[in-house]
Formats: sequence, structure tokens, C-alpha cells
Amino acid sequence: MVEVGDFVRIEKDGRVYEGLVMPRHAFSGKDILVIKLRNGYNIGIKLTKNCKIKVIERRKERIAKKREIPYDENKPTVALIGTGGTIASYVDYETGAVHPAATTEELAFAVPEIFDICNVEAKILFQKFSENIKPKDWQKMAKEVAKYLNKNMPVIVTHGTDTLAYSSTALAFMLKNLNNPVVFVGSQRSSDRPSSDAFQNLMNSAYVALSDIGEVVVVMHSSISSNGCFIHRATKVRKMHSSRRDAFVSLNSKPIGIVKNGKIEFYEKYEKKKSGKVRIKPNLNENVCLLFYYPGLKREDFEKIVDGKDGVVIAGTGLGHVSDDLIPPIRKLTKKGIPVVITTQCLQGRVNLNVYSTGRKLLKAGVIEGEDMLPEVAWIKLMWVLANEKDIEEAMKRNIAGEISERREI
Amino acid sequence: MVEVGDFVRIEKDGRVYEGLVMPRHAFSGKDILVIKLRNGYNIGIKLTKNCKIKVIERRKERIAKKREIPYDENKPTVALIGTGGTIASYVDYETGAVHPAATTEELAFAVPEIFDICNVEAKILFQKFSENIKPKDWQKMAKEVAKYLNKNMPVIVTHGTDTLAYSSTALAFMLKNLNNPVVFVGSQRSSDRPSSDAFQNLMNSAYVALSDIGEVVVVMHSSISSNGCFIHRATKVRKMHSSRRDAFVSLNSKPIGIVKNGKIEFYEKYEKKKSGKVRIKPNLNENVCLLFYYPGLKREDFEKIVDGKDGVVIAGTGLGHVSDDLIPPIRKLTKKGIPVVITTQCLQGRVNLNVYSTGRKLLKAGVIEGEDMLPEVAWIKLMWVLANEKDIEEAMKRNIAGEISERREI
Repeated sequence: MVEVGDFVRIEKDGRVYEGLVMPRHAFSGKDILVIKLRNGYNIGIKLTKNCKIKVIERRKERIAKKREIPYDENKPTVALIGTGGTIASYVDYETGAVHPAATTEELAFAVPEIFDICNVEAKILFQKFSENIKPKDWQKMAKEVAKYLNKNMPVIVTHGTDTLAYSSTALAFMLKNLNNPVVFVGSQRSSDRPSSDAFQNLMNSAYVALSDIGEVVVVMHSSISSNGCFIHRATKVRKMHSSRRDAFVSLNSKPIGIVKNGKIEFYEKYEKKKSGKVRIKPNLNENVCLLFYYPGLKREDFEKIVDGKDGVVIAGTGLGHVSDDLIPPIRKLTKKGIPVVITTQCLQGRVNLNVYSTGRKLLKAGVIEGEDMLPEVAWIKLMWVLANEKDIEEAMKRNIAGEISERREI
Repeated sequence: MVEVGDFVRIEKDGRVYEGLVMPRHAFSGKDILVIKLRNGYNIGIKLTKNCKIKVIERRKERIAKKREIPYDENKPTVALIGTGGTIASYVDYETGAVHPAATTEELAFAVPEIFDICNVEAKILFQKFSENIKPKDWQKMAKEVAKYLNKNMPVIVTHGTDTLAYSSTALAFMLKNLNNPVVFVGSQRSSDRPSSDAFQNLMNSAYVALSDIGEVVVVMHSSISSNGCFIHRATKVRKMHSSRRDAFVSLNSKPIGIVKNGKIEFYEKYEKKKSGKVRIKPNLNENVCLLFYYPGLKREDFEKIVDGKDGVVIAGTGLGHVSDDLIPPIRKLTKKGIPVVITTQCLQGRVNLNVYSTGRKLLKAGVIEGEDMLPEVAWIKLMWVLANEKDIEEAMKRNIAGEISERREI
């Protein structure tokens, strides 16, 4: 009996089909067997009397089979830290849903071509969809990454794309004196799909891991057609599309460069890797809220949200505004010494509270201008600054990890 | 004695300068007079003995001077409704800050060239920076706009850019059977600046007002270099830069078209204007919150924010996710019959809760997929739907005002 997940060979009418048995979909008839071909496409085959079906490998055997990770002493070794997400996930053939995987071997063998350029020391740190990753997990990641960096290994972190930019930003603040690149990589389409970006993204992140960059970066598809990947500065990148492979976009800055066919072309200045040990500053004050302003946000709602917080980041409108009626409760916060940082929900452009009277009132009420930081980045930075710096306003306005660009006239 | 705001003529060393007297800046010396030249640039002139200064027009006279609005019976008449914002604002020469203006005449004469193509019936509805505009104001706008439409006049609404897209979206839901275009327009730089976009935006919105479009649209600069403006569908546009003139971008859709040199080129299908009367459905249930998910959002914070609301819109991550620990409180809401709509903070792309297990759990918990609606648009729509429709889920998933695009494979 053929089971879902088995790898089968079917001969019918003189043709041969090989593939994984998929679950029956509601729309396929009972006598239709759906298999996923090696090229990733699914086809339905009508089972007639003249069909020959042979199970080449049972699902369980395939999953259980161990593979040995190769090692070549002439090649550099890259640490590959798995945290979950599509790039290290498998399709559940019962439901068709994608689940995080799996074993160290599965992670290392996700793209076996990687062994052509480096050895891989793989480690599954956790197996989470990134929507479930929390600030505590960033601290674990920072510590794990630092451990490998201090063995002088570049690090690739595979991560779900949903909150990948949050995690990479957190590590950009937590890790100091980077002696090797830290590369976050994900994929938008799982590797069982013909349109998957997992292969290109992971291979390109290996090339970046072997470069002289001394920053936390994100390596993801640069366009839907090319095989190149942009190298984004962790604190400047944002997921800007729910499904496209080129979803990651650097805002208020160009990507640092592009990696294509094994070569890196740089667009922007970047930090070179340092000598010596990496230091970590993983502490955060998690009691900070991020608040998106909208015209119906009432004063009492605002007060409820910020109540008891040690810091507040607001994504205001335009140059960084909120409605007048929120200014008194903001003043109350700043008077108690609670920092209120203003960013813009436009995402692009700089906050400037000197242009309009609302902005000037906000400045008088004691808010901190978030310069050209993304709202999420300012939120992570404020948590970090509250736990690591003394002069909060000075630190929020100082560029610490590439999060604030120099002013340029546009 | 020369005062700030006076228009003066200065002769010095054989050269003549004419301009508005500006306030002294901290960095200009006491013997420096700063004037804004007719071309918009400021210069500082050192006042020496051989300077001749003549006041051509006192500030107060200039402000008080009334102008008569021309009328040509051979031209169509366009209603110009002012709500405030930079496009109808003036620079306070005491502080350098920009304030909303002004009189009906000032509004009509903002761009006198408009009289070459139409008559203008100007009306100052209010004078607000748009960050202070609230849902109640949208209702006033809708009623006022409908009044003019039912006199068979196309309507241009001048509006601050910060929340322009919110207001135009609200009117797109409130106004039915449009018999003329409703054009929202703003400017990113005030008209006293040489780089102002006020002139082009307003002229181009007049051309759109005279077209056969039967939708609420937004007309704003298409690029920083061109004199063309995009015609955006109200429910698909978002302010995506704090200061650039081409800040408005259609997301998940092309602009409807471009207007340039008095001509419109269409990119997309659009509703043609209808015959008969416009109807308005201005009711809203304002007790709906818009919530931006981030990895530090704790369950208790979430519960505080949604407590007592009649509807909740969440900007989730990626395809529309939130962390697992928010699913039980979401289920509590939906069990009480409170709609919870999921959109994506990526802003681009469609929500799809069938791909990953988190999404499937959310669907089981009873959330409504927000398709490819912007989070702000879904928030406004839910307020409107709660007040005007019976089957909330059906209505949220049905395209009502161009807010949901047809599915296309990307």
C-alpha cells in the first residue's frame, strides 16, 4: 500500500513518473494519485489497471536516514545556527502546511552545495516560526552567535522571515567588536517548491559569511528574477511584502552590496571585521511599547497602552506627528522621566519636529526625535539603551549600529 | 522701521534685492537682515551705511488685501474644499513654523493658474493640520463633498498630507454612486518654498476633477523630478516618505493613471462617473482599534488594548501572523462576536493564513483575513462595515471601494 510521503515510481502508458506521494486534495478524485515530481511540480495521475506503482523509498526510511557532514581541512568553517522558519522547514504531507524542521543534519544538508566552499558546523538553537520569537530568544541567539565568533567562525543564522529583521537588529545592538560577519538568512518559499529562494539565499549567505564584513547583515533575494542577493544592514532592512522573494528592502539607505555568482559588489561603506574578541551586551529592558498612531486613537486608549511602561516608541504621521490631544499625556510621561521616541509610520524619511507647530509642541513636551530609524528599530534600540546606557536621549540620537543615517538633502 | 513680514527693496553696492523680511535666526548677526527673495531663497544682507531700504508693502496690508475670484460662464466650476495642511498654509515669519491658512480667497488664489481651466467655488471647511483630523471630521467632509457633487460639481479637497490617505479612504467608503470625481490633494512643501509641489499638485488635481472618473482619488507628485502627478485610488495609497514630494505610493496596485501637461494617461481600470444623485453613508462605529504586532507585545498588553472594543484590526507579520500566545485572547474576542481582522505589516502582498500552522490556528480562532488591504484601510473599513452592514465577515472580504485587489500570481 502506497502511503503519503513515500517516494514512488509509476509507469503508465509507456511513461515513467517519480515523486513523493502527496495527500489527496478535496478536488482530486478518489482514483487520482497526486505526486510531487523531482522538479517540485505536483501532478495527478489517474490510477487505471495498466498502472505499475513501485515504492522506491518509504517515507519513514527517508526521514530516518542519517547523512554524514563532510569536512575538508583546507576550507574555512562557517557556523550555521538554526532557529526555525521556512528555510529550515518541511511540508507536512498530511495537511499541506509547512512546519519547522528538524535535525542538525537536515539543517547542514539543506543546501549540500554549501560544502563546495566551506565546512559547516550546524547547530539547532531552536525550531520556531519567527512570529513566536521573543526578546528572550534574541539574547539566546546573541550568546550562541558570540560563542562561534569567538572560535573565529563566521556565523549564518537561519531564521523565519516574519521577524527576521527584528532579531537581526537586536543582535546588531547586542554584539560589539565583530571579528567575523553575522549573516541572517531566511526564505520566502520552502525548499520543496520549484520557486524556492532557499538555495540561492543560503549559498549567497555563505559567500557573505566568508567576506571581510564586520556587521550583522541580512542576505535575501534582490529581485524576483535574479539569482543575486542583497546584503542589507540589519538595522535598515524591513520585510516589505508578505510573499515575494525580494520582500526584504533597505529603507533610508542602500543595501551594503549585492552578492551574485560568488562575488560581492559593494554599494555602501561598511564596518570591516575587527581583531580580538567579540563582546556581548545582551541586556534589554523589555518594558517598552511600540505604538502606531492613527486618527481614531483616543487619549484614554493611549494612556492605557503606555501605562506602567519604562519607555514608549510612537510611529507618528509624516514628519513625526500625533494629534494635539495626545500631547498632554506625552508630557506626563516625560515629566516622570519616561522616554518617548517619535518615529514615522511613513517608514521612509527623517523625523523633523521643527517644521510644523505640532512638532514644536511635541519637542516642548520632551519627546526624542527618532531621526531616520524604522519604528521597530527604535523600539529595539530603546529597550537596549535603557538597559545599557545612562543618557537615554543622547544614546537614542547617536548612531550605534548603523540605525541612523547621516543627514542628506533629498 | 522694517518689520518681519514686510516686503522690502534693498539697494546695496549697486545691486537691488526684493523680498520678505524674515525673522532673525540665532546664527545670523544682529546687523544681518534676512529676506526671502521672490524665487523662494533666503539671503542675509549685512546692513551697512550705504544700504537703502524701502518698504514696498507692509505685512498687514498684504494680508488684508482682498482679491476677487474671477468667474467665466464658459468654464466648468470645481468646488475647492479646504481642510488645512501645507497646501493651504502660510509661514509664520515670527517663528519660521508653518501654520494652516486662511480665507476662502487665499485658498482660491493658492494657484491662480487654476482659473485658466475652471471656475472655483472655494470653501474653508476647517483649518487643521491633518494629524488633528478625526473620524468625526471625515463625516463632515463627506457631507460637504456630497453637497457639491449634488450640485453637479467635481470636488477637490485640499488636505494635510499626514492623514490624507486616511480621510480619502473614509470618503471612498462613505460616498456612493459618484457622479463626479472627488480629488484629494496636498503638498509636501509649502508654496513659499522654491521646491514646493503645491502648484503642480493643485493644477493637476483640477485636470483630474474635470475627468470622467467616478471615484475618490489622491493626486500627488509622481516623482521628485517630473511635473506629473499620479492618480491614486484612495483605498490603495499610503504616505511612504516623511518629506519627499513623491511620498504617496499606491501599494498592491498601480496608480489609476498619471496626469501631465493637462493630459491623463490611464494605467488601470477605474469606475466611470455615474448619473443621478450621490448618496452618503457616513456612519462609523469608532470603537475599533488598530494594533501593530511586534515580538515584545505581551498577552496582557494585547488584552488591555482590545478590551471593550467592538472590532480589532491587527497588522501581523508576514502572511498575517501573531505569536501563539495571542491566539487564546483572539479566540475570546471572536467568541463574543467581536470581529478580528488580520492584515500584514509588510504593507505589500496578501494575507494568507493557510500556508503556515500559525495561520491555520488563527483561522480556527475565528479571525477574518484582510486580503491585500492596508492595515489603516482595513481599520477604516471595519468601522464603516460595523455601522452599515449586517454580515461583517462577508463585507470585510468583499471589495467595496477598490480596497481589495483581485488575486494575481506574482
